Amino acid sequence: MKNKETKPHWKDKLHEIIYEADTPTGKVFDIVLLIAIIFSIVLVMLESVKSFDIKYHSFLNISEWIITILFTIEYVLRIITVKKPWRYITSFYGVVDLLSTIPKYLSIIFAGTQGLIALRALRLLRVFRILKLARYLGASQHLANALKASRAKISVFLFAVLIACVIFGTIMYLVEGEENGFTNIPKSVYWCIVTLTTVGFGDIAPVTALGQFIAAIIMILGYGIIAVPTGIVSAEYATASKDPNKPPPIDLNSQSCSNCNAKRHKDSAQYCYRCGESLHL
Amino acid sequence: MKNKETKPHWKDKLHEIIYEADTPTGKVFDIVLLIAIIFSIVLVMLESVKSFDIKYHSFLNISEWIITILFTIEYVLRIITVKKPWRYITSFYGVVDLLSTIPKYLSIIFAGTQGLIALRALRLLRVFRILKLARYLGASQHLANALKASRAKISVFLFAVLIACVIFGTIMYLVEGEENGFTNIPKSVYWCIVTLTTVGFGDIAPVTALGQFIAAIIMILGYGIIAVPTGIVSAEYATASKDPNKPPPIDLNSQSCSNCNAKRHKDSAQYCYRCGESLHL
Amino acid sequence: MKNKETKPHWKDKLHEIIYEADTPTGKVFDIVLLIAIIFSIVLVMLESVKSFDIKYHSFLNISEWIITILFTIEYVLRIITVKKPWRYITSFYGVVDLLSTIPKYLSIIFAGTQGLIALRALRLLRVFRILKLARYLGASQHLANALKASRAKISVFLFAVLIACVIFGTIMYLVEGEENGFTNIPKSVYWCIVTLTTVGFGDIAPVTALGQFIAAIIMILGYGIIAVPTGIVSAEYATASKDPNKPPPIDLNSQSCSNCNAKRHKDSAQYCYRCGESLHL
Amino acid sequence: MKNKETKPHWKDKLHEIIYEADTPTGKVFDIVLLIAIIFSIVLVMLESVKSFDIKYHSFLNISEWIITILFTIEYVLRIITVKKPWRYITSFYGVVDLLSTIPKYLSIIFAGTQGLIALRALRLLRVFRILKLARYLGASQHLANALKASRAKISVFLFAVLIACVIFGTIMYLVEGEENGFTNIPKSVYWCIVTLTTVGFGDIAPVTALGQFIAAIIMILGYGIIAVPTGIVSAEYATASKDPNKPPPIDLNSQSCSNCNAKRHKDSAQYCYRCGESLHL
Repeated sequence: MKNKETKPHWKDKLHEIIYEADTPTGKVFDIVLLIAIIFSIVLVMLESVKSFDIKYHSFLNISEWIITILFTIEYVLRIITVKKPWRYITSFYGVVDLLSTIPKYLSIIFAGTQGLIALRALRLLRVFRILKLARYLGASQHLANALKASRAKISVFLFAVLIACVIFGTIMYLVEGEENGFTNIPKSVYWCIVTLTTVGFGDIAPVTALGQFIAAIIMILGYGIIAVPTGIVSAEYATASKDPNKPPPIDLNSQSCSNCNAKRHKDSAQYCYRCGESLHL
Repeated sequence: MKNKETKPHWKDKLHEIIYEADTPTGKVFDIVLLIAIIFSIVLVMLESVKSFDIKYHSFLNISEWIITILFTIEYVLRIITVKKPWRYITSFYGVVDLLSTIPKYLSIIFAGTQGLIALRALRLLRVFRILKLARYLGASQHLANALKASRAKISVFLFAVLIACVIFGTIMYLVEGEENGFTNIPKSVYWCIVTLTTVGFGDIAPVTALGQFIAAIIMILGYGIIAVPTGIVSAEYATASKDPNKPPPIDLNSQSCSNCNAKRHKDSAQYCYRCGESLHL
Repeated sequence: MKNKETKPHWKDKLHEIIYEADTPTGKVFDIVLLIAIIFSIVLVMLESVKSFDIKYHSFLNISEWIITILFTIEYVLRIITVKKPWRYITSFYGVVDLLSTIPKYLSIIFAGTQGLIALRALRLLRVFRILKLARYLGASQHLANALKASRAKISVFLFAVLIACVIFGTIMYLVEGEENGFTNIPKSVYWCIVTLTTVGFGDIAPVTALGQFIAAIIMILGYGIIAVPTGIVSAEYATASKDPNKPPPIDLNSQSCSNCNAKRHKDSAQYCYRCGESLHL
Repeated sequence: MKNKETKPHWKDKLHEIIYEADTPTGKVFDIVLLIAIIFSIVLVMLESVKSFDIKYHSFLNISEWIITILFTIEYVLRIITVKKPWRYITSFYGVVDLLSTIPKYLSIIFAGTQGLIALRALRLLRVFRILKLARYLGASQHLANALKASRAKISVFLFAVLIACVIFGTIMYLVEGEENGFTNIPKSVYWCIVTLTTVGFGDIAPVTALGQFIAAIIMILGYGIIAVPTGIVSAEYATASKDPNKPPPIDLNSQSCSNCNAKRHKDSAQYCYRCGESLHL
């Protein structure tokens, strides 16, 4: 695998900076990116506030262009420094990184059609940049395991809750009727979900005595069954954290292979566990 | 029991397709049925949306007839292929399957009286078809055990909550009075349930300072005691999942006896554990 | 203690019927009492519904008198059959039983002053009859232990929540001000409790951007800290149910001593553990 | 360290009374302070209720002055009796104690500018006196440990919830639009947090069918994921309470060193663990 080291040194250096957080420069890069993402999300949000947009329109526009160009450079560098670019481009983060840049460019192409609603939606795609933050959610492996273990059971539970909502919603539609806001079954089911999950907007509320009685039953039911998913997760989590047969957690570092982009290498790893590429060049 | 094998082969074949999900044809049947159920529920819901019903009335009517005939065929086949039909007809799913078909037929008989409210209710009975989905909720035996173990304690708890609601409701009726929406005790108790379960519609809300003070106490109480059912379920669930005296879970398959319709046979079972009928004919 | 057996036999018999649920007659007495209590609560509730009260006033009045006389007889019998009546009269249930009867009698004495609000409140005292039901809440000893063990911690927790509510309430009063419904600090604190406990009536809601931002922080805080009491109770409950040093639960029966009214005797007990009175006469 | 005992005896005596709760006088001091704090908080609250402030303005003013002078004396005594006053002044409670006194004094200085909003805010700073109560929250060390252990995981979880809220909020802004109350993205995100945390004010509620459908998804998601922090805390709490490797809890007393103000000395401690000062002079 040593012969692969003949590739230009600056590529390896850049790969280490962009994809890894072990070196000081890598850390700086990560923090700059983090600030840029949060700043860009705040920009998208402020742009939607009309009074603000009118006042600071040119400031928002220029800042947006700076962010877009920054993200474009980042995207291009990520493609260049990885040895198998296609794997990165088609990965989840590859798509997210691309979507973070194109909406602004498209806004020039369709500049004449600014009024289109579809374009507004397109521009708002930029909010998905927040998914770039998911990279920093980090190694809560333990929690993820507990959720994965209880996923099937929580699905079954939510499915049962939905069945109950359809039945109770239909009953409430019959009992309350259209004159009290329960105009059709889908709306009644929506109300039932609002009530069972203890959200309780109050935009629709039962008026008749019988309707309020049934609502009380739904609420107490919702209060009682909220215990179920909690019980599942907390038991699974407890089991996951004291299973004696489980191997001790391996210290995984933030390196990623410059060849195949694989992550979660052991701290002591010298070569990529997937493609055999040397990790420390 | 071998002499029972002389019954026509097609009945056994059909039984396997309808009642079991082990064979490919059985799986296809299940998926088709699942789609038909969900489609029929969506139909019932859309029918209640007036603007949609006016536009696509004939489409809804024809689709509904197709679904009804499909469910009728399924119901008849289930009766024919089971050796003890009466046991199936009087079972929970037998009743649900029957109720899934008759409302549409009754709508012809009472065609002249279309305006009757009772009939509208009857037509909506079709929503209970969703209970046919319960068949697919599957083997969450573990969860059911935890719920069964904590059922008694949760009942006692909910009973205590109800007592508290009646007392607090009466106090609020006295404090707030009819001019602030607390028109009578049942309504006050309803409000108290809405508050204690943290639903909080806001259709009725305390206005006087004393009323808001008592409401604050009710809310903090509700916030504190929601911990109780959760604690019970999660402890019972944890106990159920690590009891060392518990026998290891037996792999149960989805077969059901063609004679007595018993379910939950062991994977290695050759004969029905209830009536001794051969399972693999 | 044998010399105490010379007291009239009918008193012992009655004591067994009224205070214990082991004999068939005792069970019948309990069920009749249970129905009478629930019926009387429903009466009090219906009386507050004006339209119902006008229609069925005499029915409500007569039923109420029957219930009151029944409860009076029960109260007198309980005093007669207990050997130490004063201990019963001053006990929690003694007071509840007395309060279940007197409001109706007082309504004759103050008959001329029917219009007094105080009297209405007095009549509603009858709703506390529901506390008579607490007798039937039964032996959820296990749950009570878990609650007792976590009581101190939950108090500390609720105290901390209250401190947070006072501070956040004051901040919201400053930020939103009187024009947006936050008319004074107590009301702001009330709103903060409504929000933190996730009840959310919506009678008061932040209008300014800054107010909504702070509200969002309060909500996420409330969402995060609801985990704390739940975690405490469920851990204490789990500990309580598998402590190996704990003696095995003793089968307690529903007998009560005819001399001192002590309860929770062991099934095999021959004499009262408190006063030595023979239990089976 | 014995030579330090030459400092005047009354200082040590006062230190014991003010900083410790082991002696009867220390306990009396604590209770008096506790009452004064709660009384002063009630005063601040009542002052904000206009109708009350007009009626009892001079009473409120005089009481406030008494409380302020009391707290000033307490603050001065605390500085005098501690050997390293600077450490106390810059500590959390030192700042809180100072903030409890100054707002009232500042109100004289700026007496002519009574109408200033900033001053009203300043006067309300007095509400932070409630933080003086935190001293009495006491030794819930066990609970604090469980929270500390799960802090990182709950942060990651809340961060993920925030990301979801931003995305769902933007989608709702597009779907519902400005005419239905979702006037801009920050407001939509606020609504999303209100919904996901099951608070549900109802000041903004989806009107379109698609909006209500997405809202239903958000609610069921919120209902499902509330299980996560609860599961974490309760598992960590359970682990913390039965870890066999953990040393048995040391009985910590309420003494504090008169030299460096260090707390949490062992009951058997003779000298301060931080500076070696003798504890019992």
